[in-house]
Amino acid sequence: MLESFVTVAPDSDFPLENLPWGAWEWHEPGASAPSLHVGVALGEHCVSATALQAAGHLQDLPGAPAGVFSHGRLNEFMGAGAPAWRAARQQLQRLLSAGEGAVRDSRELRQRALHPASAVRMLLPAAVGDYTDFYASRQHATNVGSMFRGPANALQPNWLHLPVGYHGRASSIVPSGVDVFRPRGQLLPAGAAAPVFGPSAQVDFELEVAAVIGPGNALGAPIPLAAAWEHVFGLVLLNDWSARDIQKWEYVPLGPFNGKNWATQISPWVVTLDALEPFRAALPPQDEPEVLPYLREEAAHRRSYDVDLAVDIVPAAGSPDTPGLAATVTRSNLKNLYWSFAQMVAHHTAGGCNLRPGDLLGSGTISGDTPGSRGCLLELTWAGRDELELRAERGAGAGVGETGTGAGAGAPGKEAAGDGGVVLGRRTYLEDGDTVTLRGWCGGGPPAGGGARRIGFGRCEGKLLPCR
Amino acid sequence: MLESFVTVAPDSDFPLENLPWGAWEWHEPGASAPSLHVGVALGEHCVSATALQAAGHLQDLPGAPAGVFSHGRLNEFMGAGAPAWRAARQQLQRLLSAGEGAVRDSRELRQRALHPASAVRMLLPAAVGDYTDFYASRQHATNVGSMFRGPANALQPNWLHLPVGYHGRASSIVPSGVDVFRPRGQLLPAGAAAPVFGPSAQVDFELEVAAVIGPGNALGAPIPLAAAWEHVFGLVLLNDWSARDIQKWEYVPLGPFNGKNWATQISPWVVTLDALEPFRAALPPQDEPEVLPYLREEAAHRRSYDVDLAVDIVPAAGSPDTPGLAATVTRSNLKNLYWSFAQMVAHHTAGGCNLRPGDLLGSGTISGDTPGSRGCLLELTWAGRDELELRAERGAGAGVGETGTGAGAGAPGKEAAGDGGVVLGRRTYLEDGDTVTLRGWCGGGPPAGGGARRIGFGRCEGKLLPCR
Ligand SMILES: [Ca+2]
Ligand SMILES: [Ca+2]
Ligand SMILES: [Mg+2]
Ligand SMILES: [Mg+2]
Ligand code: NI
Repeated sequence: MLESFVTVAPDSDFPLENLPWGAWEWHEPGASAPSLHVGVALGEHCVSATALQAAGHLQDLPGAPAGVFSHGRLNEFMGAGAPAWRAARQQLQRLLSAGEGAVRDSRELRQRALHPASAVRMLLPAAVGDYTDFYASRQHATNVGSMFRGPANALQPNWLHLPVGYHGRASSIVPSGVDVFRPRGQLLPAGAAAPVFGPSAQVDFELEVAAVIGPGNALGAPIPLAAAWEHVFGLVLLNDWSARDIQKWEYVPLGPFNGKNWATQISPWVVTLDALEPFRAALPPQDEPEVLPYLREEAAHRRSYDVDLAVDIVPAAGSPDTPGLAATVTRSNLKNLYWSFAQMVAHHTAGGCNLRPGDLLGSGTISGDTPGSRGCLLELTWAGRDELELRAERGAGAGVGETGTGAGAGAPGKEAAGDGGVVLGRRTYLEDGDTVTLRGWCGGGPPAGGGARRIGFGRCEGKLLPCR
Repeated sequence: MLESFVTVAPDSDFPLENLPWGAWEWHEPGASAPSLHVGVALGEHCVSATALQAAGHLQDLPGAPAGVFSHGRLNEFMGAGAPAWRAARQQLQRLLSAGEGAVRDSRELRQRALHPASAVRMLLPAAVGDYTDFYASRQHATNVGSMFRGPANALQPNWLHLPVGYHGRASSIVPSGVDVFRPRGQLLPAGAAAPVFGPSAQVDFELEVAAVIGPGNALGAPIPLAAAWEHVFGLVLLNDWSARDIQKWEYVPLGPFNGKNWATQISPWVVTLDALEPFRAALPPQDEPEVLPYLREEAAHRRSYDVDLAVDIVPAAGSPDTPGLAATVTRSNLKNLYWSFAQMVAHHTAGGCNLRPGDLLGSGTISGDTPGSRGCLLELTWAGRDELELRAERGAGAGVGETGTGAGAGAPGKEAAGDGGVVLGRRTYLEDGDTVTLRGWCGGGPPAGGGARRIGFGRCEGKLLPCR
């Protein structure tokens, strides 16, 4: 366990082993205007690489241009590649360690570079040139296909041969903490002959993880599968807010459009592959059918990470009895993918399409084998057929800890609340005022237990506001 | 007719009445490195607004930030809105007019601001944050639907109710003059049970026009139909290069992906709505069915422009007999749309999705009523059933003039070559080495005839290179 001179709680998402990258606005006390920073999270602080580099640190990053942290966005750093990422990580772990005095003993540098997380406004970590959303969980694709075409035809003929994906909307990607408006749109009411225009009645979340692209490729120069992971800078949580009724009417034959382009939300901290390395996990083999050679991975190289995922819903403060209580409505894991991020990169570029630093590749909804691990309300309520009870453990605020009401496995050391829970409401789809929070973490056993230190993703959180 | 001190040929696409906007790289004789410029086309010159503004002109543009032309991209200028666009147009028309000495009489300023078109490298006019492609020509949708589902079910149930569109890939948008590589991809050979990976055998062009977005909107704040045209900075030609075999296998259920993300090409000059104003044309009424109120346009407001469109193919120099001869394979017109660009803007933002300056909204393939006005090879060859003869008029180079072999209406004053033509080859889909050129123009009758002065779009041209 690495020790820092900065206080890090034992259950923090952001120990010195993590150091996820982000961007934020910081209004320094006494300064006339806020300034833009990029850097890493450590406990309850944001550590400004911008300030540290301006003070002469973080100078020697192989492949990175001078002043790479001075732009308020991480795109250039992401484009610099693994040697620069690794060098920055090592230098930051040293600078922030308990035994190193360069920052610890300089009151001025600490003030310039250590910003309390509660005082900053997190931004998108990078300008997102393009956002692609895949459909890579077999359980999710099977559930959705079964609902609409029956279990016998659940998967389309192409699904087991290629990672199906579509181009999403980049402009409407927002970081955690931004609230979103229920969309209006064109819908076909059940049994109606003609569509109407009005508020969506089927607003949903989608629990996803996205890869943030590093160097990328030139147009016409595919990234081979063997090199694909080198182009992943790290991972974030992603909530692909969706309006099912709009999507259902519009999506034939060119795919989702207004049903999904009104908001896509990501967690602001990009967790690097180096931080996730202790939690590497294999994906199941793909042998029925065997995939084509450009996508074929040896079983041992079918890489994912053992990232526990959960989604909480906090209804609008309506009942004085349950202020701020959160219901965990699903628990899943990043191992619940059929296609690896490396395969998504290789397939995406196979025809020559270019990826750029900061691009996002969403996994698609990550659903597991059990009903409690389904990654969206469409599946959890079986397209609205079954109401979902929002059940919270008393005293558990959103994201404070496991609420124990989901059907999936809880984090180690926490128990399901069982009948001691509180019912906050019932849902088919989301109601105005609902706050949706995605969480993700690796490890997280009690530190005394000697397990690997918890590596967290923080939160991806947004409230659904009424139609504007 | 406006007269400039810069020479403009009578049949030029770029008279003083046009002044389309673009961006380019210019290596000034004697300079150590090339520099980036934005500005307008005039005859055979690029007029640098960057240089003129640096010399003290173009200072007073309402709503535009200082130095708006100093970034090498037009995004900020596009975002400034119509008052700034109109002021810049008026000031440039004055500065470049025959009677005005400020530029005409300064050898130094002429050298800094007037760059021969043959000596610059055209770039994308703006950074494209997002690119959306619609499907707005009824003839195109009907042809494609008839091929795959039969004439009775040609249009999907939603088609007459909303402008169907999908999110395209922004990273692979290239300007005219960049050559593209035939993509490899996953395809299902006819009759096969499993897909293979290999070169696409069905590479196609798509004749489109795209709206370039001006100010745009904030997330959650739709643009009402009545304000939509204010958000269109201008129009460009767009070739949505497509691989039909890849598209066919991948596109269910989320839409086109690798079939279309390997290259999208645009003409480098954005023709403004002010320049197109004399050629305004009405679209046919939409009354069967009537569309929903948020998309409903009074017949008199169903705006398009009378832009003649053509596509030329020049095969690789294979025959010494026909060097550089071009076959015009289709002629269409921007009036062949069912959905207006204003409706596309209103629908795109109806759920809150935000548009940003420089975004592209492609019309979709623009096909007319006759076989000779179909906008892609898929339609021209009826999915490969009918071979297309590439027939050129002797002596007509690509884009030099009308080659007269298309079945649509030629430009006034030119005649079809009839049997005097030369057959350059036959095609179902494109062959390696084929150069595809889109052209567009308004007016273009002989100047002596007293018609409105020709307003041209220039070319959107690229060669299909073999698989890399
Ligand atoms: Ca999704
Ligand atoms: Ca298209
Ligand atoms: Mg989304
Ligand atoms: Mg394209
Ligand atoms: Ni600027």
